[in-house]
Amino acid sequence: MVDTIAAISTSTMSSGGISIIRVSGSEAIDIVDSLFLSKKNIKLKNVASHTVHYGNIVYEDKLIDEVLVIVMKAPNTYTREDIVEIDCHGGILVTKRILEIVLKSGARLAEPGEFTKRAFLNGRIDLSQAEAVIDIINAKNDLALKSSVKQLNGKLSEKIKGYREIILNNVAFIEAALDDPEHIDINDNVDKMTKDVDNLVDNVNKLLKTFENGRIIHDGISTVILGKTNAGKSSLLNVLARAERAIVTDIEGTTRDVLEESINLSGITLNLVDTAGIRKTDDIVENIGVQKAKKYAVDADLVIYVVDSTRDLDDNDFEIMSLIKDKKVLVLLNKIDLEMVVSKEDIMKHLPNARVVSISAKEEIGIDNLEDEIKEMFFNGNIQVNDEVYITSARHKQLLTEAVASLELVKQGIEAEVSEDFLTIDLMTAYEKLGLIVGEEVEDDLANRIFERFCMGK
Amino acid sequence: MVDTIAAISTSTMSSGGISIIRVSGSEAIDIVDSLFLSKKNIKLKNVASHTVHYGNIVYEDKLIDEVLVIVMKAPNTYTREDIVEIDCHGGILVTKRILEIVLKSGARLAEPGEFTKRAFLNGRIDLSQAEAVIDIINAKNDLALKSSVKQLNGKLSEKIKGYREIILNNVAFIEAALDDPEHIDINDNVDKMTKDVDNLVDNVNKLLKTFENGRIIHDGISTVILGKTNAGKSSLLNVLARAERAIVTDIEGTTRDVLEESINLSGITLNLVDTAGIRKTDDIVENIGVQKAKKYAVDADLVIYVVDSTRDLDDNDFEIMSLIKDKKVLVLLNKIDLEMVVSKEDIMKHLPNARVVSISAKEEIGIDNLEDEIKEMFFNGNIQVNDEVYITSARHKQLLTEAVASLELVKQGIEAEVSEDFLTIDLMTAYEKLGLIVGEEVEDDLANRIFERFCMGK
Repeated sequence: MVDTIAAISTSTMSSGGISIIRVSGSEAIDIVDSLFLSKKNIKLKNVASHTVHYGNIVYEDKLIDEVLVIVMKAPNTYTREDIVEIDCHGGILVTKRILEIVLKSGARLAEPGEFTKRAFLNGRIDLSQAEAVIDIINAKNDLALKSSVKQLNGKLSEKIKGYREIILNNVAFIEAALDDPEHIDINDNVDKMTKDVDNLVDNVNKLLKTFENGRIIHDGISTVILGKTNAGKSSLLNVLARAERAIVTDIEGTTRDVLEESINLSGITLNLVDTAGIRKTDDIVENIGVQKAKKYAVDADLVIYVVDSTRDLDDNDFEIMSLIKDKKVLVLLNKIDLEMVVSKEDIMKHLPNARVVSISAKEEIGIDNLEDEIKEMFFNGNIQVNDEVYITSARHKQLLTEAVASLELVKQGIEAEVSEDFLTIDLMTAYEKLGLIVGEEVEDDLANRIFERFCMGK
Repeated sequence: MVDTIAAISTSTMSSGGISIIRVSGSEAIDIVDSLFLSKKNIKLKNVASHTVHYGNIVYEDKLIDEVLVIVMKAPNTYTREDIVEIDCHGGILVTKRILEIVLKSGARLAEPGEFTKRAFLNGRIDLSQAEAVIDIINAKNDLALKSSVKQLNGKLSEKIKGYREIILNNVAFIEAALDDPEHIDINDNVDKMTKDVDNLVDNVNKLLKTFENGRIIHDGISTVILGKTNAGKSSLLNVLARAERAIVTDIEGTTRDVLEESINLSGITLNLVDTAGIRKTDDIVENIGVQKAKKYAVDADLVIYVVDSTRDLDDNDFEIMSLIKDKKVLVLLNKIDLEMVVSKEDIMKHLPNARVVSISAKEEIGIDNLEDEIKEMFFNGNIQVNDEVYITSARHKQLLTEAVASLELVKQGIEAEVSEDFLTIDLMTAYEKLGLIVGEEVEDDLANRIFERFCMGK
């Protein structure tokens, strides 16, 4: 017997054609039954699971809306509980009115993420899969989406569970040997354990290394565009903003409160620092000054430095180059459709590690090269998310780092031939840290913190 | 064989827990089948109608999202065509990606309102019901919602169809009598026809009279609040804005581009003119001047005139009262918790037709009376939307007015004993005008104009 929760599961920021009110729990079917009236007087408690029924929502003899009701009975549901979804007209008022009636009829308003939390608590998905649900909803580009769906499908969980099993086997052997030293010689396992732990350290470190790319896939590359006035920054932005980016433009509209503007380059998201940013950075050097450029450049993953190749480099350029010389820099020699006086070599003298691409923003020449160079710089040219699992959550990174640290202690312990008891402690620490990623032995407060990040109705 | 259309049916302004992609048409099931992969390898074309299936959307061997798919087969569907709804994670990107894939797989993007248009064209609903769908989605308050749902349920259509039948019977009798004068005497029907037409004129006029209230229920009462500085306009607004109005507040957030601010008073919506309005009208008389107040007051359905009853009336008050004396005015004698120097009689001298209520906005005294007075002024105290059908659409009003005009011509014709042929022409005109309300004999361009007002996906 679990209490019954309800929430609007579709976006409530504006009206749409359809809204969904989702109800989950022991009373879900009875509650909606008390409000649902169909021509044939169907009782939802009698219908087959996973069926759809047309009728009206009626409350206190008043007709509220014409709806489709979807009945899904436990355990084959998102939460593993009985779920009823009411698909009503997508007006804000009518949707809220139906939710209100469902709440008056015995459900309680769900907390943000509570449906997914129940899916987790009832064992349908583990914690890393639950986190993937939020990532899917927030995905900014196709690669982020793919990688999140993979995580939801349990690819990360599989790896983590595999590691944990290896650790547990070794702990079990030690425990058995300590319990029954006459029959089990603890030294029999030392070679295997050494090999296992070495492998685990390698594998977890490999996984950790995916974090940088994973973060960039999910969150985008924080990017600042520098260059003197009239170097062509605005034209560049216009070109970048035009091709293929309808979807991002829409998303931007919804995240205006975030201080960045995002541009999608065939799967990579460039986050241009500061919303007003694009306009502001335009004149950054000469108007806002080198100090501000410096501040932006320090935090950026990528500096795109636009050079007007028809004008000689001057002190402004030298100052810019000096302050970005240790960053990942992509130099764009712009205006190659005109007579050039600045060469790639001139730049390389000051920025030996930079990549230099010749373009004409105005004539849209070389833009593909620009995209390729960025891919090269961040993904060694390979940004296919195929079978590789990416770590994208700072929480996972932290736990993997802690797990590796404990495993390193095990390695040292084996070398120093410390008592097996000590090895067990470190192995179990690694085991628990990895467990927290998938949500085994997870404390309540951690689960709460994770699910609070969800929107209502999910 | 109808072409297959697809659209996102949930709001796409922001992400939510779930989104719906709706597909309708002959190929709907095949198209989604080609993208849908379930554990048991279910083929959607083989499943029963109105069933729900869990699985993945897979495109070009890439997993796109985990979804529920709802299969509804013609003819028991919204459009009367095969419909498949894909419930996916409510992220903007993932939702658009799935729509994109459905479009690549053979569907075409639906026009705004095209699903409802098909429901109309395929005879599931008539035109007035289709219009009710938009009204439900846009409903601002409970009464508007109730009245729209009633219209969707066909209450208006029933009336209109009843009137048309009466007209058609009379036309049929005339035609029969003209065809077969030997057996049918046209004079036998004159009394009945006279009575019928009188009744029709009465009934249609009654319906027309509901328009003013219908409009106010749906669109709200355009209201301007006037009063001198410190009369207590801000306190009044604060009180009005506080009680019971959470839902309106939310809706406001979505309609900021409209130049009004709405406040719900137990079912009545007051639209305060001018968004910045509330603040601006605060000081309207003394700061912006009487001219501006005049401009606002001319167009308003209701003027709420707040008087500081602790201060003697002055020239400002006299000027305000003079300019609003022909309007519907509700005078609020404010600050009755303090010593009053202005009485109801003082006001009535200048505004004999106004209603006067004593309140204390600060102490929240008399606010209920204020609400009652407004109800009294606009609905004669009765704003229950029970069995009464309200006309809410200017289109309907126009057609009813034209129908009445034709029926009046019939009445005159009967009195003048004109040839029956002429009566038939006017009767048929009335018949056609009424028909346009429910969409019989409706021209294509009219239907197009109506459905263009819909959001996508409905």
